[in-house]
Amino acid sequence: MKLGELGEFGFINRIANRITRTDGVVIGIGDDAGALTPTPGCLTLVTSDMLVEGVHFDLSLCDAWTLGRKSLAVNLSDIAAMGGRPRHFLLSLAIPAALPVEFLDRFIAGMLERAGEFDVALIGGDTCSSRDGLVISVTAMGEQQPGKIVRRGGAAPGDLILVTGSLGDAALGLELLRRGEREGESVTRHLDPVPRVHEGLALAEAGLPTAMIDVSDGLLADLGHILEQSGAGARLQLAQLPLSPSFRRTASAFTHDPFIFPLAGGEDYELLFTVPPAREAAVNEVLRGSGLRVSVIGEITRDSGLTVLDANGRSYPVTARGYNHFPSP
Amino acid sequence: MKLGELGEFGFINRIANRITRTDGVVIGIGDDAGALTPTPGCLTLVTSDMLVEGVHFDLSLCDAWTLGRKSLAVNLSDIAAMGGRPRHFLLSLAIPAALPVEFLDRFIAGMLERAGEFDVALIGGDTCSSRDGLVISVTAMGEQQPGKIVRRGGAAPGDLILVTGSLGDAALGLELLRRGEREGESVTRHLDPVPRVHEGLALAEAGLPTAMIDVSDGLLADLGHILEQSGAGARLQLAQLPLSPSFRRTASAFTHDPFIFPLAGGEDYELLFTVPPAREAAVNEVLRGSGLRVSVIGEITRDSGLTVLDANGRSYPVTARGYNHFPSP
Repeated sequence: MKLGELGEFGFINRIANRITRTDGVVIGIGDDAGALTPTPGCLTLVTSDMLVEGVHFDLSLCDAWTLGRKSLAVNLSDIAAMGGRPRHFLLSLAIPAALPVEFLDRFIAGMLERAGEFDVALIGGDTCSSRDGLVISVTAMGEQQPGKIVRRGGAAPGDLILVTGSLGDAALGLELLRRGEREGESVTRHLDPVPRVHEGLALAEAGLPTAMIDVSDGLLADLGHILEQSGAGARLQLAQLPLSPSFRRTASAFTHDPFIFPLAGGEDYELLFTVPPAREAAVNEVLRGSGLRVSVIGEITRDSGLTVLDANGRSYPVTARGYNHFPSP
Repeated sequence: MKLGELGEFGFINRIANRITRTDGVVIGIGDDAGALTPTPGCLTLVTSDMLVEGVHFDLSLCDAWTLGRKSLAVNLSDIAAMGGRPRHFLLSLAIPAALPVEFLDRFIAGMLERAGEFDVALIGGDTCSSRDGLVISVTAMGEQQPGKIVRRGGAAPGDLILVTGSLGDAALGLELLRRGEREGESVTRHLDPVPRVHEGLALAEAGLPTAMIDVSDGLLADLGHILEQSGAGARLQLAQLPLSPSFRRTASAFTHDPFIFPLAGGEDYELLFTVPPAREAAVNEVLRGSGLRVSVIGEITRDSGLTVLDANGRSYPVTARGYNHFPSP
């Protein structure tokens, strides 16, 4: 079915009819604006991410369902990186005329499935036509008490640098997709990332991180944001970067330097955070139930700059610095 | 200058440095999410609108400054239509590589000027590259007490239908632009609409409207939303539609039926609302200071359906029904 047969408002009603979660929602889809009840004592957290066909995704390499899941996940990840509890989101779509309604149905179904897993409600958005590719814009809203929100700028010299899960898988997965693979752990990490919402919230509720960010642009780039805003430097230990077994098995087949994936590859959506050394045990305690490993990968230094040391203590030359949408010519 | 010379984060910093309004903003641009303080006792209102090059705007017909103003205005208009007070917004941009930084500077300057006029603060968003045209996604947030929010579904039989300002100018302006005109009242109404924020807020604070919407898709389409959600019908008086002097002077040159502009032309961004007849005087009282006329254009009926009567009381054939992004083939 073509969208023209359904019409703009038919499509919006189709989405509205599939929404089951309404926690905190006073007015949902179908008015000029949504209305929701803020939790007393909390700040409202809000973030937007845009995903553009041909830039962020390639419809020949992903299916509608996982694209819907991912489009929400990357936004939830930003709320997680603040230590917030995501609650609501808006979805805006610019849709090419030729895109079948079945694609959009599966996209919405995947997105609402992800929303259900993290208990967030769709409360509005916009749909319009696109001259060229599909454009997805999601705004996620969450909450946290002012004293528990974790920013990027609080890292102090001596703090340990930690990261959840493993790094490099998503970038490797994208490389594998481009070479024709369609499944496997790394491919799934790229197509269907899991936002670390529970982990970010648990860390923030326990008051542990001094700074936190999600790894979306790549470890070096995202750690760079923490360093810049904290006015500090860092020393990373290459040998301590958490690499998954499947990554170890596969990555060396592609490059003589597999560390380029965990250092500069983006979209792992792990949490990168800093804590004073005395809190390391508490971090392990708090994250024990998550089933997710957490690794100390370096420390914050007083002198600025970012040094990466290899297993022999030698400085490792850092070349790539993560994704920049507008690279210099 | 090309965006590549500035880089993604250079561009974001360039925007951040120009923001002066920070009312209610605890964390603004430059972290994973923005954080803001909700006003106790208020619901949070939130709305998103996407503007796509080649669909919503044509860069050969508008300048960057007014496009920035309009991109925010259409979102503020949605908050106004709920009777809310807009406070914050997010801006996401998908930017073609060839677009000069100077264009973006003027776009942002126009948008921040509009923001200043309505005392709303930019708190975040996203920037990325676009394969094709410019895509603008704005999310606006506002507030209002639960009992004062005005929805679409509250119109009752016997209620008067009122509209602020004048109708049809924006659609006529678009037609004039396409024929080569670059200025004049109608053209300005299309390129640089004024959201009726003060008026929507004043009406809501006084508790007057039973239903309200902004005229974005066209009078018939937007009144249709009120009727559908209120489970009622309406009778409109063609002779009472508010037409501006410049509209009257110009429109008849284009069509034998100039009423097509006020009835089906979109983007006037006036407020369309209903009140019981006993409140008409209070509406005039509340809006007296705004300098904006307000017109009774019809009434809500018990029987469903929408009838338009001409000056002689004869039924006027309604053909066009406003903008639909996905028309039937």
